[in-house]
Amino acid sequence: MTPEPLPPGSRIGILGGGQLGRMLAIAAARLGMRTHVYEPAADAPAAQVANAATVAAYDDPEALAAFAAAVDVVTYEFENVALAAVDALAARVPVRPGRRALEAAQDRIAEKAFLNGIGLATAPWAEVDGPEALAAAMARLGAPAVLKTRRLGYDGKGQVRLDRGASAGEAWTAIGGAPAVLEGFVGFEREISVIAARGLDGAVVAFDPGENEHRDGILHRTTVPARIPPSLALDAVLIAGRILNALDYVGVIGVELFVTDGGLLVNEFAPRVHNSGHWTEAGCLVDQFEQHVRAICGWPLGDGARHSDAEMLNLIGAAVGEAPSIRGARVQLYGKAEARAGRKMGHVIRIAPRSA
Amino acid sequence: MTPEPLPPGSRIGILGGGQLGRMLAIAAARLGMRTHVYEPAADAPAAQVANAATVAAYDDPEALAAFAAAVDVVTYEFENVALAAVDALAARVPVRPGRRALEAAQDRIAEKAFLNGIGLATAPWAEVDGPEALAAAMARLGAPAVLKTRRLGYDGKGQVRLDRGASAGEAWTAIGGAPAVLEGFVGFEREISVIAARGLDGAVVAFDPGENEHRDGILHRTTVPARIPPSLALDAVLIAGRILNALDYVGVIGVELFVTDGGLLVNEFAPRVHNSGHWTEAGCLVDQFEQHVRAICGWPLGDGARHSDAEMLNLIGAAVGEAPSIRGARVQLYGKAEARAGRKMGHVIRIAPRSA
Repeated sequence: MTPEPLPPGSRIGILGGGQLGRMLAIAAARLGMRTHVYEPAADAPAAQVANAATVAAYDDPEALAAFAAAVDVVTYEFENVALAAVDALAARVPVRPGRRALEAAQDRIAEKAFLNGIGLATAPWAEVDGPEALAAAMARLGAPAVLKTRRLGYDGKGQVRLDRGASAGEAWTAIGGAPAVLEGFVGFEREISVIAARGLDGAVVAFDPGENEHRDGILHRTTVPARIPPSLALDAVLIAGRILNALDYVGVIGVELFVTDGGLLVNEFAPRVHNSGHWTEAGCLVDQFEQHVRAICGWPLGDGARHSDAEMLNLIGAAVGEAPSIRGARVQLYGKAEARAGRKMGHVIRIAPRSA
Repeated sequence: MTPEPLPPGSRIGILGGGQLGRMLAIAAARLGMRTHVYEPAADAPAAQVANAATVAAYDDPEALAAFAAAVDVVTYEFENVALAAVDALAARVPVRPGRRALEAAQDRIAEKAFLNGIGLATAPWAEVDGPEALAAAMARLGAPAVLKTRRLGYDGKGQVRLDRGASAGEAWTAIGGAPAVLEGFVGFEREISVIAARGLDGAVVAFDPGENEHRDGILHRTTVPARIPPSLALDAVLIAGRILNALDYVGVIGVELFVTDGGLLVNEFAPRVHNSGHWTEAGCLVDQFEQHVRAICGWPLGDGARHSDAEMLNLIGAAVGEAPSIRGARVQLYGKAEARAGRKMGHVIRIAPRSA
């Protein structure tokens, strides 16, 4: 039986204080919920807009226990949450999405094995635990290929491209000698992503797939609709649904896919709201942040139909300085004090009448 | 010369802690601003989502001085702010919109005299300071008519309808014997409102007029577009623009108008974001709350073009209990603990493809 929906005024705990947590907290406030952010750094973007904040380490058992006692449900805004913290919290309060999604998302080998195990195609890959294994994998998968650490990579960090003739030893050193995966080259036309949600009752809804463009390993632009045929858009949504159901997931997920001659390959998924879904704030009645809050509170999922075409641009580093002079767009800034190079400071969304 | 725009991270002071202040604070957070709510009651809806809150009376000089020192600009979310408080603040920090709009909006006589003085039509009216003046005004304006207190009326409070044969003495007692205005009857087809904004640089933009339906003196529903010809919609927008310019206004204003056989009459205006503009959250790229924040921060006004038709319904009193089960709509709740009868607890917006 599905539990009762959490009433307005319930307290949502958010692990992580970055911009995704900030936008979750704002969406929660719109639904009359209270928020409590748990984050080691002070004055974090999400903490600025939450009702309460705990500044503590993720391995602080007393702070975790007090946090669990202060909230009605816990969610997270990043996939590298320590599983021990999740376990400590889950003993006291529902954690949504659950441990299973985190386990799969934190380890590239586990993720690919999970995806292949439910019948989804990925790029060819090989587990790599040292320079010898890497040399063997390079021989098998050919060049170019990409060596990625199994854990803790994001925004292009923790990975190195290996062209023909690359040295296995140097590559192994370049990624710090950590357990890794080698991914074979995939000649893809474009990268798309699907932001989808699964409710506490098992209902699944998806936003229209967006097309992503990266610069320097960081998402630069998402355009919706993606330039793909309707049949492929449907395939992408079905893939997201399969992942959600297999994980018995509650909340929003972001699934990145490569469009290839042979169909769709899953690149990776993030068990959280996703940068490539920010366009939903301006392109849909209910955005990914509200959808996530609805799901974890046991509310029916919202109407995520796209009313407009949309283009989302990230404001990286010093580009945020342009924000006060941007016209004709929706601007969202994250409350970060220092505009360091490569740091996501905000984003801009433009819309146009729906074309397809 | 127009002052420089306030940079992200600036501190916006909001007088008043209700739902309008709450939605202003949320919009400010989206633009990376900090908010500080000043409100006599504890745990007010706006204070829940602000970065800081002062709980103090509006006539507390020390609290006002400390508030002024803690913010970069001050705005307000209700029109009955004490002018003395505004003056105390304005000596230290910009207050936007300014005193002039408040003076006109706080007194129905001043408001009507101002409107007529800039060439705008209102219902016929007469100043009433006692039962004798009321009897004379009733004889002149005929029946039915509406007697309203000059000050502090809202949501149908402080007013009484006078039908043929009504007693001037009883009516005077019914509104508490306070200085008043008698408004002659206007046979109107519908009530519409225009939400418009004026920037620090004098630029004016308006959202499409909405059509309002009241129940028990409280706004029940706003539908956009209003069922009026384009020429009348343009007239309504021009009227709002004339008011904004005459007041040298900075921020968002809500102007209520009657559609009559003879054209538009101005009912009243509110020098703030307005309940009948809530639909903009779901019908426009930039909503009235962000538009207000942009204006008072000296940012260029946003794109308020309507991408969809919209219907906004208020959730009054116990109706808020339905919120967690509402489907296919955008829901906004105000964080109020007690769902008293007649209290605005939240609202619901539905959209449809743009029809006109």
